[in-house]
Amino acid sequence: MSAPTAIAPSTGLSALLDDVRAEAPGIEVRPPSAETTAFAYDAATAPRHGAAGLDGPAVAFPASAEQVQQLVRLAARHGVSVVPRGAGTGLSGGASAHADQLVITTERLNRIVEVSPADEVAVVEPGVLNAALNDHLAPLGLFYAPDPASWRISTIGGNIATNAGGLRCAKYGVTRESVLALDVVLADGSLVSIGHRSIKGVTGLDLVSLFVGSEGVLGIVVRATVRIRPLPVARRTVTAFFDSTAAGAAGIGAITASRVRPSVIEFLDEPTLDAIDAANASGLRARGASLLLIELDGFGIDEQTAELTIALEAAGARVETEGDADAQLLWELRRAGRRLGEGSWFVAGDIAVPKSRIAEVFAGFPEIEARYGVAVSAVSHAGDGNLHPVITLPIPAGADPSAVPRVLHDAADDLVRAALAVGGTVSGEHGIGTVKRELAAEELAERVRVAQLAIKNALDPAGLFNPGKAL
Amino acid sequence: MSAPTAIAPSTGLSALLDDVRAEAPGIEVRPPSAETTAFAYDAATAPRHGAAGLDGPAVAFPASAEQVQQLVRLAARHGVSVVPRGAGTGLSGGASAHADQLVITTERLNRIVEVSPADEVAVVEPGVLNAALNDHLAPLGLFYAPDPASWRISTIGGNIATNAGGLRCAKYGVTRESVLALDVVLADGSLVSIGHRSIKGVTGLDLVSLFVGSEGVLGIVVRATVRIRPLPVARRTVTAFFDSTAAGAAGIGAITASRVRPSVIEFLDEPTLDAIDAANASGLRARGASLLLIELDGFGIDEQTAELTIALEAAGARVETEGDADAQLLWELRRAGRRLGEGSWFVAGDIAVPKSRIAEVFAGFPEIEARYGVAVSAVSHAGDGNLHPVITLPIPAGADPSAVPRVLHDAADDLVRAALAVGGTVSGEHGIGTVKRELAAEELAERVRVAQLAIKNALDPAGLFNPGKAL
Repeated sequence: MSAPTAIAPSTGLSALLDDVRAEAPGIEVRPPSAETTAFAYDAATAPRHGAAGLDGPAVAFPASAEQVQQLVRLAARHGVSVVPRGAGTGLSGGASAHADQLVITTERLNRIVEVSPADEVAVVEPGVLNAALNDHLAPLGLFYAPDPASWRISTIGGNIATNAGGLRCAKYGVTRESVLALDVVLADGSLVSIGHRSIKGVTGLDLVSLFVGSEGVLGIVVRATVRIRPLPVARRTVTAFFDSTAAGAAGIGAITASRVRPSVIEFLDEPTLDAIDAANASGLRARGASLLLIELDGFGIDEQTAELTIALEAAGARVETEGDADAQLLWELRRAGRRLGEGSWFVAGDIAVPKSRIAEVFAGFPEIEARYGVAVSAVSHAGDGNLHPVITLPIPAGADPSAVPRVLHDAADDLVRAALAVGGTVSGEHGIGTVKRELAAEELAERVRVAQLAIKNALDPAGLFNPGKAL
Repeated sequence: MSAPTAIAPSTGLSALLDDVRAEAPGIEVRPPSAETTAFAYDAATAPRHGAAGLDGPAVAFPASAEQVQQLVRLAARHGVSVVPRGAGTGLSGGASAHADQLVITTERLNRIVEVSPADEVAVVEPGVLNAALNDHLAPLGLFYAPDPASWRISTIGGNIATNAGGLRCAKYGVTRESVLALDVVLADGSLVSIGHRSIKGVTGLDLVSLFVGSEGVLGIVVRATVRIRPLPVARRTVTAFFDSTAAGAAGIGAITASRVRPSVIEFLDEPTLDAIDAANASGLRARGASLLLIELDGFGIDEQTAELTIALEAAGARVETEGDADAQLLWELRRAGRRLGEGSWFVAGDIAVPKSRIAEVFAGFPEIEARYGVAVSAVSHAGDGNLHPVITLPIPAGADPSAVPRVLHDAADDLVRAALAVGGTVSGEHGIGTVKRELAAEELAERVRVAQLAIKNALDPAGLFNPGKAL
């Protein structure tokens, strides 16, 4: 343990909770308890079999921006650090919290404030689920483009905190490209509006882009103005099966060399197809050893399909347009078909590389498998060079399913270094959180880290927000 | 005896130039002189009839990133502030410089380092002209999307410094959306790489977006990795003429309500058409009183045209598809047809508003005309709510053409306030520079300005870079 600090955390937290009850009685707060351990973890850090016996953090449930301001001011007064939390679906530990911290959850900041088709914007509170916004927009013929795999259960606020990507972002951009303006509570409790409801605007430094992806270390988003778009006039699912993983990875380049820009390009390698078939009897491997699962959208869908087909067939693919039912099944298999964790330990990754290097990353899997005695496979958001590798090892009879062996993490770290070696990045879309801080230090030069910390300190000099994350 | 200041500027500059010659003799530097006044202004601040008798700033012509580092370190040593400069086409005074400053021009940092169709990126030095990059890319079937009106004469580095917009950005985004990575020289002379060659990446704070649009106050970009795209399979120019300015402004909403997203939507009001016709005998007013000049691109160009035509005809437009020669002429008239400045004083503006409010801004022109006795017209990048108003007043016989009366500026300021009143911004794409600092203060809350200055100070504590600009 480190030396005692100037602030005695538990005393501070208890005094903070007393002050909240006295000065802001309208805000529900829960003290640290076994019950609040649900707020101690995100999807990356949650123990697989619970965390009995430990206390979670204190948790506050503000229902307005003003209540967030009150909480931040009181937390600052007592030197209690604050962990902003959306739905806790993050995959890098960004929302993890200790028993001496105050979690501010956005779950009651969940109003869709406004939808303006004429301005092509929606104004939402951060706790709105990504899916809830899209359910609201669909009858209006509109959609919000960023679609992280967690879209059904993750919040817009969490998506903003992590600059969430997803499947469609090669065509429509990541979350940053869809956020026009934010209301943010800063470390001194002030509420500021940054950005513009207009599509364009260049007044001063781009604070909105700085906050997007900042993993809660700069402030708490309490309202967001996001860009919405008309639903495309048509969508079509196309499959391209190849005779090997290598051939399929090379096929990605054939799409890039064409003039077609699909809305989604998912690449599934041979072990991934095997795993999906094993869990679903889906028969994909009978059609090929790797798969590019593609969604086209927009005008000229037949022209797009024709040009895409020519490009992929020239690369050795068997190309088919899928009917609606088959398409729906294929996307479901892509999302949930692998059934990770049944009988195997696994570690999942999130790297991104320049598009031309995707094939090299896949080609390097056998070497890592041999080095660590594990199995490595991946799916890739191939349109933007983002890969989600999965490292697995069968759990021997009698072994503890929660005791993931070190070799899996070592293999995952090697994959990250392989991405860095070809000009890639340690996190494509999940963020740094607590899980990837050491790896981030391998990517970023010391001078860049110093610059990032200087900006953090400029906006949050006391280190109130989400200490130990992201930077 | 007056109080001595810490730094005697002219002494500091002269000592700096001595040190450059002694320690970095490979860098060409020019001391302040009448000849360097060409480097004292940008397109917004240049006197219309020269600035005889005044000395310009010192100017350095580095040809490598290392030379930029040397210059920044020496400038810091002597307390001489640095003004980064691209082509000087800016419209907000961002590159203006005094005789006690060192201008670092990027004109010899003009190499296209790499084009990678497979990664969809180009790597360029900042002094590369926007047009030069596109000339280089076109034979490869590729293009760089941001297209400020100055694209033939402005640099990629200048475009990055101002987060330049242009005509196509409603569909393809502004400069920020096309910049993936930067090499930047910071205020301590260190050279850092920020961002990713991969399309995605979320490692730490998004410093790239922070630098884009920062108008040279945070550092000097010495290399940029930008996103490039395949040229669209088709482009088509469509005109929609309306019976009044108001009808045309309302027609913008008809496009928004459709599912077509043109690559360019330019709106020209009645006085603009009159001015173009007067200068070019172009006969546009015979076709209508306002014009939506539209470019469609991509697949399904006939489908797009059909849906767009239905939407615009329902809004009262006369819609025509233009042949290649007519289309080229129309775009040329849009760009240069108004012949501003011939016989009239003028002040040009740059505001942006939520798309649904564009019509209100045009509807407010007569009131401003009446208040100030001037003429007001505008063209608008209607796809993203950006307007470029022009306020004019005939120059009476014998009056000084360079003595623009105050009423024109007052009217321009009123237009900015009208934009703010409907949720818009003081600068859509030209930036703040020196010209709009006071107006920016009307848009941004004091707490936001404090936050912006804190970030500036965190990265440039001595205020070396471009003092007095943007913030």
